[in-house]
Amino acid sequence: MTELTGKIVLGPHQYGKAENRVVRIHRDTPRHEIRDMNVSSCLRGDFGAAHLEGDQGTVLPTDTQKQTIYAYAKGVEFVETYALALARHFVDDVEPVHSARIEIEEYAWERVAVDGVGHDHTWTRKGSEVRTAAVTVQGSGRARREWVIGGLKDLVVLKSTGSEFAGFLTDPYTVLEPTRDRVMATSLVAKWRFTTTDVDWDVTYAGIKATMLERFANLQSKALQQTLFEMGRAVLEKYPFVAEIRLSAPNKHHFVYDLERFGVANDNEVFHADDRPYGLIQATVQREDAPDAGIAWDAYTGAV
Amino acid sequence: MTELTGKIVLGPHQYGKAENRVVRIHRDTPRHEIRDMNVSSCLRGDFGAAHLEGDQGTVLPTDTQKQTIYAYAKGVEFVETYALALARHFVDDVEPVHSARIEIEEYAWERVAVDGVGHDHTWTRKGSEVRTAAVTVQGSGRARREWVIGGLKDLVVLKSTGSEFAGFLTDPYTVLEPTRDRVMATSLVAKWRFTTTDVDWDVTYAGIKATMLERFANLQSKALQQTLFEMGRAVLEKYPFVAEIRLSAPNKHHFVYDLERFGVANDNEVFHADDRPYGLIQATVQREDAPDAGIAWDAYTGAV
Amino acid sequence: MTELTGKIVLGPHQYGKAENRVVRIHRDTPRHEIRDMNVSSCLRGDFGAAHLEGDQGTVLPTDTQKQTIYAYAKGVEFVETYALALARHFVDDVEPVHSARIEIEEYAWERVAVDGVGHDHTWTRKGSEVRTAAVTVQGSGRARREWVIGGLKDLVVLKSTGSEFAGFLTDPYTVLEPTRDRVMATSLVAKWRFTTTDVDWDVTYAGIKATMLERFANLQSKALQQTLFEMGRAVLEKYPFVAEIRLSAPNKHHFVYDLERFGVANDNEVFHADDRPYGLIQATVQREDAPDAGIAWDAYTGAV
Amino acid sequence: MTELTGKIVLGPHQYGKAENRVVRIHRDTPRHEIRDMNVSSCLRGDFGAAHLEGDQGTVLPTDTQKQTIYAYAKGVEFVETYALALARHFVDDVEPVHSARIEIEEYAWERVAVDGVGHDHTWTRKGSEVRTAAVTVQGSGRARREWVIGGLKDLVVLKSTGSEFAGFLTDPYTVLEPTRDRVMATSLVAKWRFTTTDVDWDVTYAGIKATMLERFANLQSKALQQTLFEMGRAVLEKYPFVAEIRLSAPNKHHFVYDLERFGVANDNEVFHADDRPYGLIQATVQREDAPDAGIAWDAYTGAV
Repeated sequence: MTELTGKIVLGPHQYGKAENRVVRIHRDTPRHEIRDMNVSSCLRGDFGAAHLEGDQGTVLPTDTQKQTIYAYAKGVEFVETYALALARHFVDDVEPVHSARIEIEEYAWERVAVDGVGHDHTWTRKGSEVRTAAVTVQGSGRARREWVIGGLKDLVVLKSTGSEFAGFLTDPYTVLEPTRDRVMATSLVAKWRFTTTDVDWDVTYAGIKATMLERFANLQSKALQQTLFEMGRAVLEKYPFVAEIRLSAPNKHHFVYDLERFGVANDNEVFHADDRPYGLIQATVQREDAPDAGIAWDAYTGAV
Repeated sequence: MTELTGKIVLGPHQYGKAENRVVRIHRDTPRHEIRDMNVSSCLRGDFGAAHLEGDQGTVLPTDTQKQTIYAYAKGVEFVETYALALARHFVDDVEPVHSARIEIEEYAWERVAVDGVGHDHTWTRKGSEVRTAAVTVQGSGRARREWVIGGLKDLVVLKSTGSEFAGFLTDPYTVLEPTRDRVMATSLVAKWRFTTTDVDWDVTYAGIKATMLERFANLQSKALQQTLFEMGRAVLEKYPFVAEIRLSAPNKHHFVYDLERFGVANDNEVFHADDRPYGLIQATVQREDAPDAGIAWDAYTGAV
Repeated sequence: MTELTGKIVLGPHQYGKAENRVVRIHRDTPRHEIRDMNVSSCLRGDFGAAHLEGDQGTVLPTDTQKQTIYAYAKGVEFVETYALALARHFVDDVEPVHSARIEIEEYAWERVAVDGVGHDHTWTRKGSEVRTAAVTVQGSGRARREWVIGGLKDLVVLKSTGSEFAGFLTDPYTVLEPTRDRVMATSLVAKWRFTTTDVDWDVTYAGIKATMLERFANLQSKALQQTLFEMGRAVLEKYPFVAEIRLSAPNKHHFVYDLERFGVANDNEVFHADDRPYGLIQATVQREDAPDAGIAWDAYTGAV
Repeated sequence: MTELTGKIVLGPHQYGKAENRVVRIHRDTPRHEIRDMNVSSCLRGDFGAAHLEGDQGTVLPTDTQKQTIYAYAKGVEFVETYALALARHFVDDVEPVHSARIEIEEYAWERVAVDGVGHDHTWTRKGSEVRTAAVTVQGSGRARREWVIGGLKDLVVLKSTGSEFAGFLTDPYTVLEPTRDRVMATSLVAKWRFTTTDVDWDVTYAGIKATMLERFANLQSKALQQTLFEMGRAVLEKYPFVAEIRLSAPNKHHFVYDLERFGVANDNEVFHADDRPYGLIQATVQREDAPDAGIAWDAYTGAV
């Protein structure tokens, strides 16, 4: 029986202000500092009446969330602490809010070098990977729970050797040839869940990134799957306050171009970098004693 | 205690071939038909050894998944049945696969009109909303389960009146003024879960879209939240074989431009369409007697 | 001798405000109308001192250009006349301006159909081709010159038969096989220069588009080059007040997928739509008695 | 008289293969090198019959151009010399070709640092500015002409002080307030024309970029116009074999956010980075004794 007659009700719902492009300049000394961020807020709580009856009495406008995000930017030190401050504010100070999630992307800048010295107040945008943070704060008093997920995305990394792919399952649609030496490239997305909010944030971010890159570079890879697991394992081994790490990696195919037909030898030297389709490998590496993740992974953007 | 010492293990993992750009032309008669699709596969099963030891013995290459996707395209009738056929094949014919998920985006085309008549074999791409399908097939024999999620994305819709926003909660950061007449615009993402695979797919898709648009157009809206719920409710009322619908709607702000200072009256006539930030409202409308959703909503792209 | 010692001087220069997202709603009657536009201004004139000495005395701020663009939006009827009004204003009313160029993209919307009737104040964005206009006004009094270039971009069009490619030049790098039946698809950019500003703008736009599409559809094409020329010729034959038309067409390759190896016949039925690279064919069709084009084609965006 | 009756003829036309994604790995020693490029070709010559009659007898397929681009990639040393080799080949070896233009974008990679040492065969993509080259070769024998235009795009640069904007022209639409201290940011596009092909390409590219950045950083700017001119002048002063430089710079507005209303001081510390609209400033800096530019600036992509 596929026809349903049950009562139609409101299910999970949330709302917020997405993609506030906040730039914070610290200029207390001649040597300025910059934090360039894209900040999204998301609130969950007693908002049913807005959906069911159009009653906005419990709804803090998304415009207000925007104002709050800019107001709190004055106190930015790290994206993670900024997100925590915002999420705590919404849960503590806005009565209908039961939980709040703040997601931040941070874009890196580097000082312009003039005569070998970094300039005091001029930067170029690095344009490499984007640092991400997703903070969820839930409940009050003894029921208070807080989760911080650090991460990065768009880390494009390539190795020109040290990767193979062979011994795979075949079926009637399999035409791929095994290889013992190929280019491996990806645009990595990684998210790691902290067990604490007492972290040296910038140092830890740099350390986790370096740890993953070292594994990518030095592991003789039998598959992207293996590389991902080893990258995750290395992070967990080094950082006992990380409970789990999730990795998503498109296999950005670099096909050896057939130049033999033109009398040109091509020993893994000339490649076509293809756009689509691409393999997509996703894996979680976790600890058996990891604490409950709660709603920490419930996404905001793209949640539906 | 935030330092963990538990064993490091592999958690949930999956892999597949994303974004295969398949175009199927039906040309058995002079009046051709076209299906233009972006197809992604995702397999779950016994792939632990690939991660842990680099052993590919159970891994069907993503290249093979690509070949299979194109081979099965010969039989395309609807995107939903094409996805079902692919997912069933991977579960039934590839031993290590426990469940398979196929996601398809379909791009609409319309016949070029020549002298008022649609051309037999020439089309322009409509470029409006993208139709989506996400099919999950799990298990074999009596344990077999199948879910189909239909949907659309990028449906950009705007109403120039019939929308208000007032009576909202205020706090010290609230500067927004209430309004009784505003532009409301969004780029809708909607996904609905079917309770059956026995559906008149094209007719149902058109009907659900029309039902949502009628509600958007005719409801005097007190908030985007209310509009979303009413759109969802109307769909569920009309389609008893839809168990739930999830809606995500950016509030694409159109700000009335201040022209009074230049001596030009502006009674909701000239607007600035802003890019960022934007409100983002998300809601689920469901039935109390909806069957279990299983892993139907476990996303592929962006799962991490 | 490649070392130069000549005086370093300022060459051609211009400035303006790009991408003002203006939405104009006509709401004088219950049946509203919408014009959704992206407007860019560009001024040329006596601005040398701003470059050479940082003296802004002749520089009308780009912020002022923005305010003007919104203020003039009240009077929008067609994008071409709106652009003309803006360009004339800058040349006539701002003393240092010698010439002004206004570029507009217009996004099409269609009324939501409810019970078969278009809704009074709700639309969905069509998302098909973008209509473009580029107006240049130069000089005052008897030296006044005005040019209007109409156009479209992103018109994605495909024919599933009626296209061939054979008899081409070959060399040692040629591996392509000739074909007598292939898919031909492009994302057309076209720009046509009017000889007058006295035009029935909406009707003419629709007519030129329809004329090009008819040729694309009905011409048995021996090459995309031929199709472009015939499209352009048909427009010029039908519209004696169009002096020339420029066409740029990526050859969006649809490769027949090799399914024979899997025992599946594929008679131009299943294709891979490739992203990159793509052929790019560009041509101008013009009249021998076309008047001087002046600076009409000097682009703004992307001019450098 | 705006109605034309002159003969309809083919005007300027060209064709080629755009966006070949070529990756060249140099692996003759354990320390590999990488060149990651996007290569487009464009040919002009005796191709009228293809347009007028569909006769392909003089048309070298764009597929052949693709094969040639990959075949020549074996010999890549710099993008400029690679482009020269390709352009010369098409003009010299393909009879109907009168002139050839090769455009290349190069994406930078940096070695992954492991224990402070750059890895031999693993890189991350830098993602900062894109290096560009556009080479045109025309004619044979004594009529041979060659032009090389170097450049960069997407160089995002910001200074947090040292920029002002005041003393500008005002009119009735002017509401902007002058400022003596603002953030100035842009995403620079620059193209410079060489007078020779005998250049130390990588060193020169780095030097020109550094020269422009020094000026951006250290000049107390009265306007973006002034900064652009001084950047260009510095390049021409330092490099006597550069004939001219063209600069295009969007003014990426960073608006000081009004936090006073919430009791928070904001002395150029918290900004909203706006997307659109943006100012767009374009200027050429050249020498009085610069040689003729020929067709060097005739673009390919976007030429129509």
